[in-house]
Amino acid sequence: MSAHSSIKYFEGGVTAPAGFSAAGIKAGIKHDKKDMALIVADCVSAAAGVFTLNSVKAAPVLLCQRHLRKSRSARAIIVNSGNANACTGPKGLADAASMAALTGAMLNIDPALVLVCSTGTIGLPLPMQKIKAGIRRAVENLGRAGGSEAARAIMTTDTVPKQAGARLRLGGKKIIIGAMAKGAGMIAPNMATLLVFITTDAALERSALQAALARAVENSFNRILVDGDQSTNDTVLCLANGLAGNKPVTRAMPDWDVFTSALTAVCRKLAGMIVKDGEGVTKVVKIEVNGARNDADAEKAARSIARSQLVKTSWFGADPNWGRVICAVGYSGARVVPGRIDIFYNGRPAVKKGVSAGLAPDKLHKIIAGKEFAISVNLHQGRGSYSILTCDCSIEYVRINADYMT
Amino acid sequence: MSAHSSIKYFEGGVTAPAGFSAAGIKAGIKHDKKDMALIVADCVSAAAGVFTLNSVKAAPVLLCQRHLRKSRSARAIIVNSGNANACTGPKGLADAASMAALTGAMLNIDPALVLVCSTGTIGLPLPMQKIKAGIRRAVENLGRAGGSEAARAIMTTDTVPKQAGARLRLGGKKIIIGAMAKGAGMIAPNMATLLVFITTDAALERSALQAALARAVENSFNRILVDGDQSTNDTVLCLANGLAGNKPVTRAMPDWDVFTSALTAVCRKLAGMIVKDGEGVTKVVKIEVNGARNDADAEKAARSIARSQLVKTSWFGADPNWGRVICAVGYSGARVVPGRIDIFYNGRPAVKKGVSAGLAPDKLHKIIAGKEFAISVNLHQGRGSYSILTCDCSIEYVRINADYMT
Repeated sequence: MSAHSSIKYFEGGVTAPAGFSAAGIKAGIKHDKKDMALIVADCVSAAAGVFTLNSVKAAPVLLCQRHLRKSRSARAIIVNSGNANACTGPKGLADAASMAALTGAMLNIDPALVLVCSTGTIGLPLPMQKIKAGIRRAVENLGRAGGSEAARAIMTTDTVPKQAGARLRLGGKKIIIGAMAKGAGMIAPNMATLLVFITTDAALERSALQAALARAVENSFNRILVDGDQSTNDTVLCLANGLAGNKPVTRAMPDWDVFTSALTAVCRKLAGMIVKDGEGVTKVVKIEVNGARNDADAEKAARSIARSQLVKTSWFGADPNWGRVICAVGYSGARVVPGRIDIFYNGRPAVKKGVSAGLAPDKLHKIIAGKEFAISVNLHQGRGSYSILTCDCSIEYVRINADYMT
Repeated sequence: MSAHSSIKYFEGGVTAPAGFSAAGIKAGIKHDKKDMALIVADCVSAAAGVFTLNSVKAAPVLLCQRHLRKSRSARAIIVNSGNANACTGPKGLADAASMAALTGAMLNIDPALVLVCSTGTIGLPLPMQKIKAGIRRAVENLGRAGGSEAARAIMTTDTVPKQAGARLRLGGKKIIIGAMAKGAGMIAPNMATLLVFITTDAALERSALQAALARAVENSFNRILVDGDQSTNDTVLCLANGLAGNKPVTRAMPDWDVFTSALTAVCRKLAGMIVKDGEGVTKVVKIEVNGARNDADAEKAARSIARSQLVKTSWFGADPNWGRVICAVGYSGARVVPGRIDIFYNGRPAVKKGVSAGLAPDKLHKIIAGKEFAISVNLHQGRGSYSILTCDCSIEYVRINADYMT
C-alpha cells in the first residue's frame, strides 16, 4: 500500500484545502456560545452527502437531499447549532429554505448551491431573526482563518472541537482534504447526531465523490456507537472544488482508491475523536467479532455488545464482568454455539469455549481500568468479521442527558 | 367478562394454594443474606415452563428444559441466588444435575421431578459444598409459612420481595394461584433475568397448563423492559397439583380461558412490581403504540422508545423532550410517515401530525415529573397496537451496575 504511505495527516480543518473560507460566529441561538458556521468554496464544487436513515428526518436533511439531487454540486454550507429544526413541519422546511436563500443572496450565489444543516433540540421553531442576522455576520467574518471558529460553532455537548486533514498526491498534484465534525450524543448505527463537513481541492467527478464518501462513512462513522440512538439530523457533506488541478477522478481510476483511502482515514480520525468525546465517556472500547457465520452476524454480535447498558455500565465500573459480554452475544441474533465462544481482552483469553479461561479477575480488572482497551470475540462459526468503536456509560452520561433541554 | 369479576387478588405467595410448602434459607453463597429457596408440592404436579430465548442458556435452564421434556411434571423447585451457574460448561451442567439429585434424595423423590434455577453472577462455578448444606437446611425448614422466606431468598438486586395471588372458582371448585418473582436488572424483550414461580391447586392437563403459561407470559413478562438486556437465566415455572379437585382443565374447555385470565393477571401484577423495583428506577412509564401498520410494527416502535437511553435519561431528568421519543420511533424500523405521528402524555397531545401540539413545556414537565405516566403514540398507518411497561434510566442504575460484581 505504497499509495497510503505517502498520505500525511495533520490537524486539518475545512479551510486547509485551497479555495475554501469559513466563519464561526455567535447568533444568539445558544446562550453566549458560537452557534453558526459557514463554509464557502471559491468556485462551484462537486458535492456529496450521506444522511441519517431515521424515517423522521429534520428539515435541513430533506433540503440537502433535494439540493444535491438537483445540483449535484454546491458553493456553500450554512450550519446552526442549538436547534435541530426537526419535527417542525412545513414551517421548518420553509425556514431551512430561507437559510439557503438568505445565504445565497448575501454571497450572490444560487440558493440551490447552498446546503443547510442544523443540530440541537428537536421540535422548536428556528429563531429566524437571529438566524438571519447570524448569516450576515458569518458572511462578514468569512476567511481562511475561520475554519477553527466554524469547528467550534457546530459543537453541542461536545467538549472539544474536532478537526482532521490529510495531504497526498493525486495524479501528480498535491491535494489536501480538510474536515470538521461534531458528535457527543445520539451516536449509533448509521451515524446519529453527527455533523461532518469535508472539503478538498481535489478534482473528482460527482459520482466518484459520492461513492468515495459512502465508502468512507461506512468504515468510520457507521462503526461507532455511543448510546444506540440514531438522530434525525445526521449529515456528512463533502465538497471538492478541483483547484488542485488533478485530472478529475472517476470511479474507474486507481486514484479513486488512493483518495478514498485518505478520505476514510480522515473520517476514522474524526470518528475516534467523537467516541472519545462522547457524552460522559471515560473509556473507549474497540469491539471486534471474528469467526461469525458471515459479516452480518458479526455486526449483530458487535453492535449487541456495544449497545448493552449492562456491559457499558460494567466498563464504567472497571468490573471484569465478561458474563455480560457473552450474554449480549447470546441475544444478538447471531448464530452462536455457546461452547465455542472465545473472548479476549487486549489479546488475553478471558473465555475459552464458553467458559472462564482462568484469567485472574485482577488482571482483567487492570485491563478494564484502562482508558482504552479492546475486546475480541471469536464465534468459531465461519469467516465473518466486524469491528466497532464504542464507550462506557457513566453517571455523567445520565446527568448530561437528564438535563439537556431544561 | 363475568368470569373475571369473580377473581379475587391477594398478596399470594407460592404456599397460598393447598398442597405446597416452601423454605428460604441462608446457604452462605451471598454474604449474610438468604440465598436458597425450595418449593415442594405434596404430590406430583403438572409442570410448565417458559425460558429465555438467549442462545447462551445457563445450565439450570438446560436442565429444566430436559426434565420438563421428560417428565412433563414436577414435585420440587430448588433455587439459588448469588451465582447464575451460566457459562460454566459441562461442570455447570453436572452441578445443576447434582442440585436436582441432592434435593430429590433428601425429599425422597425422583430427581427428574426436581426443577433447578440459579440467578446471580455469570461465569463462576457454583460453591457446591455450600449448596449441598443449603439444600439440607431448606428441606429442614420446609413449611406452609416458608413462601415469604422463599420470595426473599431469590432476590438479587431487588429491593423488595414480590408475591401475588388470585382466588377464583373453576369447575365449581375454589382454586388458588400463588406466585413469587425476582427481577431488577437485565429485564428486556422475552423476559430477561427474571425468575418466576407459580403454584396452583387447580387441576390442568399439562399441555393446557403450558399453553396458559405461554399466553400469560406473552402478555406480562414479555411486555416489560428495564434495560434491554436479555438474560441467560430467565425462567418462569408453574406447578399445578390438582388438589382443588376440579375437573382437569383442557385447552378446549371454557375454564381454560378463566384460568388463563387469572394467571395472566397475576403475572401482570408481578411484572408491574418488577419494573417499579427495576435497578435505580424512579419512574414507571407505560408506552402504547396505536395505528401501526400491524402489531409487529407497533411492537418495534414501542420497544424502540422503551429501550432508548436518551429517552430514558430524559425521563429521569423530568425533561419534556418529546423529540427523543419521535426520534426513537423514526429509527425503530416501523413504517412511519413523520407528518402523521401524534404523541400524547397522559392523554394530553404533545405532538400532532409530527410537530409540537403547543402543549406548554411546564405542563409536560409536570406530567413527566410524576412517578408514573403514560405515553401513547398514534402512527396513523393502520390498526396495529402494542403496549409495554418500562422505566427511566437513573444515575443509580449506572451506579448499581458499575458495581455489581466487585
